[in-house]
Amino acid sequence: MNETGRATQPVLVRSDEAGVVTLQLNRPTSMNCLSEELLAALEVELLRISEDTQVKCVVISGSGRAFCAGHDLKDMRQNATLEYYRSLFALCSRVMMNIRATPVPVIAKVHGDATAAGCQLVAACDLAIASTNARFAAAGINLGSFCATPAVAITRAIPARHAFNMLFTGRFFDAKTMAQWGLVNEVVPHDELDQTVANLANEIASKSGVALRFGKSQFYRQREMELADAYDFATDGIAVSLMGKDAQEGIDAFLSKRNPVWSY
Amino acid sequence: MNETGRATQPVLVRSDEAGVVTLQLNRPTSMNCLSEELLAALEVELLRISEDTQVKCVVISGSGRAFCAGHDLKDMRQNATLEYYRSLFALCSRVMMNIRATPVPVIAKVHGDATAAGCQLVAACDLAIASTNARFAAAGINLGSFCATPAVAITRAIPARHAFNMLFTGRFFDAKTMAQWGLVNEVVPHDELDQTVANLANEIASKSGVALRFGKSQFYRQREMELADAYDFATDGIAVSLMGKDAQEGIDAFLSKRNPVWSY
Amino acid sequence: MNETGRATQPVLVRSDEAGVVTLQLNRPTSMNCLSEELLAALEVELLRISEDTQVKCVVISGSGRAFCAGHDLKDMRQNATLEYYRSLFALCSRVMMNIRATPVPVIAKVHGDATAAGCQLVAACDLAIASTNARFAAAGINLGSFCATPAVAITRAIPARHAFNMLFTGRFFDAKTMAQWGLVNEVVPHDELDQTVANLANEIASKSGVALRFGKSQFYRQREMELADAYDFATDGIAVSLMGKDAQEGIDAFLSKRNPVWSY
Repeated sequence: MNETGRATQPVLVRSDEAGVVTLQLNRPTSMNCLSEELLAALEVELLRISEDTQVKCVVISGSGRAFCAGHDLKDMRQNATLEYYRSLFALCSRVMMNIRATPVPVIAKVHGDATAAGCQLVAACDLAIASTNARFAAAGINLGSFCATPAVAITRAIPARHAFNMLFTGRFFDAKTMAQWGLVNEVVPHDELDQTVANLANEIASKSGVALRFGKSQFYRQREMELADAYDFATDGIAVSLMGKDAQEGIDAFLSKRNPVWSY
Repeated sequence: MNETGRATQPVLVRSDEAGVVTLQLNRPTSMNCLSEELLAALEVELLRISEDTQVKCVVISGSGRAFCAGHDLKDMRQNATLEYYRSLFALCSRVMMNIRATPVPVIAKVHGDATAAGCQLVAACDLAIASTNARFAAAGINLGSFCATPAVAITRAIPARHAFNMLFTGRFFDAKTMAQWGLVNEVVPHDELDQTVANLANEIASKSGVALRFGKSQFYRQREMELADAYDFATDGIAVSLMGKDAQEGIDAFLSKRNPVWSY
Repeated sequence: MNETGRATQPVLVRSDEAGVVTLQLNRPTSMNCLSEELLAALEVELLRISEDTQVKCVVISGSGRAFCAGHDLKDMRQNATLEYYRSLFALCSRVMMNIRATPVPVIAKVHGDATAAGCQLVAACDLAIASTNARFAAAGINLGSFCATPAVAITRAIPARHAFNMLFTGRFFDAKTMAQWGLVNEVVPHDELDQTVANLANEIASKSGVALRFGKSQFYRQREMELADAYDFATDGIAVSLMGKDAQEGIDAFLSKRNPVWSY
């Protein structure tokens, strides 16, 4: 609705193929910036995905030139009340937490610039593949504020002082630098991005859905525990997991040198 | 006073220019090692800076050949009491915490070797730029002890086993390696160090002082929280920040494609 | 006993030389996979080492083609009860915690593939040197489960999304990539591995045994504290350490430009 002349285009386009859901940010003339409508659509889809065992992997992609330019500054200027800001950023933080809570891996497919909350969106995903065209910035500091919510995701993804550098200079950094710092897993030539992400998503979708869900339920939670507690949690988890049908099938198939057949 | 024949030279030289304060360690004949006098001077200046809204960025630099050789071993040998060591290291740890508490970014400008507490000083700053001449070591292990307090800063700046390597071998590592590990943000040829640090400091000083202070109050604090708590903290923080005069001005200026004018 | 025709070979071979203990996984025909017998032997030796002040460094190495292929899948398939899995993984997690609790540095010498719990073993050591021949995988996801216990060690050694990549793709990654991500400290040509590890172990063994023990008691513990608590802990620790005989000797020797003589 905020897209002039494109009122009939949905702001988020979902496509499903063989266990991989792609959620494409579809506000190309606004550099896919995160309007309330788009954030709400993301939340709805992520919650839907969370209840759907058919889904094994999610890809978040953009349309047009940019991946995501962050929040909609025009909206923010027009609605300059504390109440509006609180509600907007609470919604945005909830979406980022939804990505974490999505029970299967979420990949950011970064074809162009990812700025402020757009950079946060990349950092909030589990994995990220970027085109050599993409650039990354936490630019809030250039606008008299600070990318406080992006900092939550960015400081958990890359070493402290690289994160500090991004957040206090607001500079753009190229994809290659982001790969060195760990914000993206891999950088590929622009025309190989589709195929690289498809390969990774399909590879993940070839795993047992039960195993992916078990894995994601373990990965982040144990990281916030002290070592001994983390080992207790993981030891209990893996013992139970191994009793499952897919693990027994997986071990059987491996020992018999045949392909496994998963529950889903 | 510990500098033979240089009793009139201050151990710390402060210079202010356009919002950037440089604190130069000035014990060149002692490789700028951290005597109680120097540590006390650092604490005084950092506390002064914390109350001065004119300051937008701090640079800590050295004089002479080394950046900082750590503690003064002669002092430590001459005053071998538990009471003295407790008081010396409590002072030193307080200075490192003062850097963290300084409300604006602090940059280490590392022109030469940074050893033990000198290496800690680099790790305790928010950002660090090093000359190709600089080397880094956590050498306490070579002296029958262990760089326990440096370890606090170093293990929070670089990956675990690189930190372990530094702390248990006591080896010198070059600046390029430190950039790969994340202890320094950037390595530049020795004769470009002054300009590179000045550019970075001036770039930071061009931001809103309000925004820098908000940012530093967020950056480290949210990192020690669990994810959901961190998002609550940051969401509340950014909503309040955006209502501020500088954020409104920043967004206005951005949308009008003009330069912003900050409160300070 | 599980090695056909090699019943008389111990599954773990210990050799001591000048303060360095090498524990060689010795199930070459089973790719050194971690049978209960091998895990129990590791636990016994690590506990023995913990009480022996003669030991200053531990090296964990493998025999045959692989470093360690993880758990014994045949055993796991034959004993598919929750009770067995709980007991097996509790033992394995205890061994990983024993490495952490070993009061001196533990180096993984990775000459070949390290898979699943084998990769965990590398990540659980304090330091790791790998041959260019070595590859690393957290392959549980390929077997309908997830490397939950390896994740505890791996996510504490390398950046979050590189860890996610390993754990959710199950792919093999080469040693050079592992060095970039920080899972191994150094990669060397295969025929230089013995010498490189021996040099590192001997270098560590040349330090004061008191200092190494003090260091290891500090390194990990302070990392799990908030910054101010970590500084309190380290400040108190270093003051007490410096009053020790070895620290006084170390400082004396350094100031006198002579070699120090340690207590042990």
